[in-house]
Amino acid sequence: MGFYRRRSSVSKDFIHPRLLCLMCFSVICLAENTEMVNAVTEMKAEESHRQDSANLLIFIMLLTLTILTIWLFKHRRFRFIHETGLAMIYGLFVGVILRFGVNSPQDLNDVTLNCAVNSSPTTLLVNVSGRFYEYSLKGEVRDSKGHEVPNAEMLRKVTFDPEVFFNILLPPIIFHAGFSLKRRHFFRNLGSILSYAFVGTLTSCFVTGLVMYGCVVFMKLIGQLGGDFFFTDCLFFGAIVSATDPVTVLAIFNELKVDVDLYALMFGESVLNDAVAIVLSSSIVAYQPEGDNRHTFDVIALLRSLGVFLGFFSGSFAMGAATGVMTALVTKFTKLRDFPLLETALFFLMSWSTFLLAEACGFTGVVAVLFCGITQAHYTYNNLSAESKTRTKELFELLNFLAENFIFSYMGLTLFSFHHHVFSPVFIVGAFLAIFLGRAANIYPLSFLLNLGRKNKIAYNFQHVMMFSGLRGAMTFALSIRDTATYARQMMFSTTLLIVFSTVWVCGGGTTPLLSVMQIKVGVDTDQENVVTGPDGLPQRSTKHESAWPFRLWYTFDHNYLKPFLTHSGPPLTNTLPACCGPIARCLTSSQACENAGQLNDEDTELILNDGCNLMYGDMTVSTDAHGMPTTSTNQAGLYSLPGTSDDPLDRELAFGGTRLVLPTDEPLDPLTSFPPPPSPPLSDPLRHRV
Amino acid sequence: MGFYRRRSSVSKDFIHPRLLCLMCFSVICLAENTEMVNAVTEMKAEESHRQDSANLLIFIMLLTLTILTIWLFKHRRFRFIHETGLAMIYGLFVGVILRFGVNSPQDLNDVTLNCAVNSSPTTLLVNVSGRFYEYSLKGEVRDSKGHEVPNAEMLRKVTFDPEVFFNILLPPIIFHAGFSLKRRHFFRNLGSILSYAFVGTLTSCFVTGLVMYGCVVFMKLIGQLGGDFFFTDCLFFGAIVSATDPVTVLAIFNELKVDVDLYALMFGESVLNDAVAIVLSSSIVAYQPEGDNRHTFDVIALLRSLGVFLGFFSGSFAMGAATGVMTALVTKFTKLRDFPLLETALFFLMSWSTFLLAEACGFTGVVAVLFCGITQAHYTYNNLSAESKTRTKELFELLNFLAENFIFSYMGLTLFSFHHHVFSPVFIVGAFLAIFLGRAANIYPLSFLLNLGRKNKIAYNFQHVMMFSGLRGAMTFALSIRDTATYARQMMFSTTLLIVFSTVWVCGGGTTPLLSVMQIKVGVDTDQENVVTGPDGLPQRSTKHESAWPFRLWYTFDHNYLKPFLTHSGPPLTNTLPACCGPIARCLTSSQACENAGQLNDEDTELILNDGCNLMYGDMTVSTDAHGMPTTSTNQAGLYSLPGTSDDPLDRELAFGGTRLVLPTDEPLDPLTSFPPPPSPPLSDPLRHRV
Repeated sequence: MGFYRRRSSVSKDFIHPRLLCLMCFSVICLAENTEMVNAVTEMKAEESHRQDSANLLIFIMLLTLTILTIWLFKHRRFRFIHETGLAMIYGLFVGVILRFGVNSPQDLNDVTLNCAVNSSPTTLLVNVSGRFYEYSLKGEVRDSKGHEVPNAEMLRKVTFDPEVFFNILLPPIIFHAGFSLKRRHFFRNLGSILSYAFVGTLTSCFVTGLVMYGCVVFMKLIGQLGGDFFFTDCLFFGAIVSATDPVTVLAIFNELKVDVDLYALMFGESVLNDAVAIVLSSSIVAYQPEGDNRHTFDVIALLRSLGVFLGFFSGSFAMGAATGVMTALVTKFTKLRDFPLLETALFFLMSWSTFLLAEACGFTGVVAVLFCGITQAHYTYNNLSAESKTRTKELFELLNFLAENFIFSYMGLTLFSFHHHVFSPVFIVGAFLAIFLGRAANIYPLSFLLNLGRKNKIAYNFQHVMMFSGLRGAMTFALSIRDTATYARQMMFSTTLLIVFSTVWVCGGGTTPLLSVMQIKVGVDTDQENVVTGPDGLPQRSTKHESAWPFRLWYTFDHNYLKPFLTHSGPPLTNTLPACCGPIARCLTSSQACENAGQLNDEDTELILNDGCNLMYGDMTVSTDAHGMPTTSTNQAGLYSLPGTSDDPLDRELAFGGTRLVLPTDEPLDPLTSFPPPPSPPLSDPLRHRV
Repeated sequence: MGFYRRRSSVSKDFIHPRLLCLMCFSVICLAENTEMVNAVTEMKAEESHRQDSANLLIFIMLLTLTILTIWLFKHRRFRFIHETGLAMIYGLFVGVILRFGVNSPQDLNDVTLNCAVNSSPTTLLVNVSGRFYEYSLKGEVRDSKGHEVPNAEMLRKVTFDPEVFFNILLPPIIFHAGFSLKRRHFFRNLGSILSYAFVGTLTSCFVTGLVMYGCVVFMKLIGQLGGDFFFTDCLFFGAIVSATDPVTVLAIFNELKVDVDLYALMFGESVLNDAVAIVLSSSIVAYQPEGDNRHTFDVIALLRSLGVFLGFFSGSFAMGAATGVMTALVTKFTKLRDFPLLETALFFLMSWSTFLLAEACGFTGVVAVLFCGITQAHYTYNNLSAESKTRTKELFELLNFLAENFIFSYMGLTLFSFHHHVFSPVFIVGAFLAIFLGRAANIYPLSFLLNLGRKNKIAYNFQHVMMFSGLRGAMTFALSIRDTATYARQMMFSTTLLIVFSTVWVCGGGTTPLLSVMQIKVGVDTDQENVVTGPDGLPQRSTKHESAWPFRLWYTFDHNYLKPFLTHSGPPLTNTLPACCGPIARCLTSSQACENAGQLNDEDTELILNDGCNLMYGDMTVSTDAHGMPTTSTNQAGLYSLPGTSDDPLDRELAFGGTRLVLPTDEPLDPLTSFPPPPSPPLSDPLRHRV
């Protein structure tokens, strides 16, 4: 990825003179001919550029091959392996070939160099025969262990800077995940999702960490441990393997049209726990007690870590939401929708700027991007023109596809191209046990507690699927490759790779059989979405009333104030704001919203409605009782006939405390697949391309 | 753009041990605490990453601002300035603010360093207190001239590696240009376009070079020259300022629906001369006579340069065409079109791989990408599914838009952020004179010569417009910023910036008035596209028969063999190939093509036809005489009534030597705008968004 500067002579013009003054050089001019040296340097730089291009080309070819195989599999109706699993296998092959099959000549041109340095500045100026060369710090290099690996130079070349994953490949994946959250079901299950994501991930992290600590202590006892491995390392490992991947299983869920609530729980949890895991791992790294022993328990350090966690999370959340809101406002109050290209460009740039803004402020860009994606889908998307909606969703879909397959094929490659693997059988077995226990400690107790409060219980079969399908993917990999400096981190990285491989292949491949074994309803149609099979086998109605009051409060606030403020939909602010705010409300309410006032057309339904469904909203004054219990249950039978014409008030509103909230109830489609409407395939058709 | 490695500890694992063995370090450990130094290094790296993010954010904000202003201008119907001109103005403002308005603290942490080096290896290992740090060569740094510039560090930070332009920003722009060539008119005028692009650009380069050499000699005489400026430098300058920009003027042309032949000539020339200029400048750099004086005339060196020119050009052309053909074959022989996402991803990856392949083989990636774009539009695009066509075109449109505006706003910024500007009034005046003369020497004599052979003459008013509208843009800038090592190059860079600014503002803004002064037909409808106003003021028919025989030969070959081989369109190979090749022909002819055989449905027309026009092809057996002269001219009057139903055989075919070639004749739309069909605006409406 590193494009070199072909004739790298511009940098000199921007070097700060003081830098030069500060650095004093004792020049030993050994080269006879300056121009010769210069030419050699340029030739080497050119060679390096060619090599870079060739390496990137390898990956592009790998991706092309993956695409063709995916097509073949879809075409021939194979479904025992997911495309990400395929990408990994191809990566593995290329890794084997590069490592054992290719003999690249070694670069012997490196010169002997005597340096006297007292620190490691980010920029180094080296004087060669009167010419100054700028060097930039790449990082620390551990001294060689003496075992020489064939083609080391070549393998080093195909290795990307780990930060590429965090700064280039992860953001589109995470943004896409946030952007394509099935928002209505997501919000309906928000409480449970947040519990799984926060409490569950924390539990999983600590359980995994504790098991691993036991394992490490055992390894030390039997003399299998070749280096330091502290408790914080164990916790760190727990944090990174607690991030479940939203990609693979959910593609299958989407394909099979699995129960929407299960989908919402799984998707919501895996998207959010990525964010939790990344912030959690940062907080664990930040846990550094004062004094000599840096690995003891220290309350102040713990509190500081907790502060880091909360700060990072809320800061990133705020950044993401802020840029989303800003984009919504810009797209609302300009007529940018007349120019879809400009609109899409703006949408893309604003979403990208979230990442940069968060990173520039020291927050976590990836987390900010997630919340930005959710906000953009919830507000901005409604303001876009139809063409721009398609463009935007297709753009992010493509970016997500490329980034995802790139990461997975790189993962395969790494198994052979990484030189310092530490495979310890005991540790690996312990790790598999630990992630099993950690996942179990996340799902089962939490589900039990949640079921105490939930009207629509999370059935045991749902719990088993959630337990089994929590496979590890891109985020776990990116977090583990980010730092492989110490023995502990190397062992973690190698083990993580194996965990990712086996979960993607085993859990990914086993999800479809499991769904049938567990008798999970697949092929759920839009008109049956509110029916879930309860533990008693009887259909059970799920309503919004099950949400706890904070979420209901949020619904109202969002619907009455945020939506009208940020989009053209919802009731006009002139109606919802108190009279004293009249002028402001009029100013902020778009003419479009005023026109819509009569019919209360929530444009959000564009996102979550199947095309062709003309959802009719009930009268605003219709209300249910304060507990959200159905006041009318007579047309229960007719409910499943035509979703667009269903007039069951229970399904269309959530009213409490005199505030009337009208929600659309039809099957929300994934916003990224809702346009154009996909032909609804037969249940047995496994070939719909995944989104 | 430089994302740092947050904890840069992976690289060590890939460092070749021999590198370590080869390098011997005399370690002087001055730092007291290793961890302290380490922490400081990491802190600095983090700081640098934040700074990078903030700088990129500045550009994103700039682009966002540009987008909003473009919208405002389009909305308010201002048209005196093009969006690229706007982007430059914003860049200028930000440059001024960064340079004079912001006071950033200087980094005083750089340490004193004593180094004894005998060369400049690409990788340097530095031993600090027992820890090895890897440094990579950034390039040569000229020693400071002693004048300290405020905010130098800050300005240095907002500076991108010039190779970013060549490796990231230019490829999408050039690909998009090739992809959106109006292919039918392009091929009709191919002879003239190639003449302008090759002969014309060479002429322009040498004329400009000679004038500049005169200017430089004069400067030396009056003592205005502060450094070396050789004849090869003058030629290099001639090469880089001979690349005219296909963006700005052609956006205006497109908006005004200017005469299609003028459009084709201007677009074809400016797209191809970018390729010629880049290869030409490489060849001039490659001109290095042996011996002491490297700036004398040397026949061998000249021939070598010529060889470099031909080799680079043909090699890049071959690479571009090859990947295009490969993509066409893959999309033809797989049913990838069932999965638009996979299809678009493949299309994108294959197009990108052209660039990498060419760079890896030592050719010019940007040139390869251009020809790849043309091939993809000519063949592959026909094989794509309708959804994928839209996706692909929108994707490249967006990339082009972003890259273009990024380059132009960066250009504005550079005027203030670049520290080593050399503005010499004499040189600047000379340069403006030289580009004027160079452009004149390109257009007028060549047009005269071409008119000797053309049936459809290039009128004087066309020539004046081509003369005036040849403004300089992204390519000129990228070529000039690529190397600013010497005094000559710096003077060139500064002058080039001014040339770009003034041509974009003056020529870009003046094109619309000029078109009316020159009485160029605007608002040309599809049914009038074949009528150009001759020098005598009478309408003149343009036919394909004016093409010289090599191009006609190419048409036939392309239509009879390449199109059927690479796409589903054209006559089946079973018909066109000799009988002995029957089995191969059957194997290569898709069933779809066989089905189409009766109606000869050239899918290419999808690209070059307005939606809704049902073009009827004439019977295959209809032919004109061997000279291509019209055999029927009776329905000349009816020709302008309905394009879709016109049955003038002259306009629909090019027949010679018994081979029948049927070409569609309707107004080709830019493939990137043809879907969905834009509403045809009134001629006075300047608000159609540019493509």
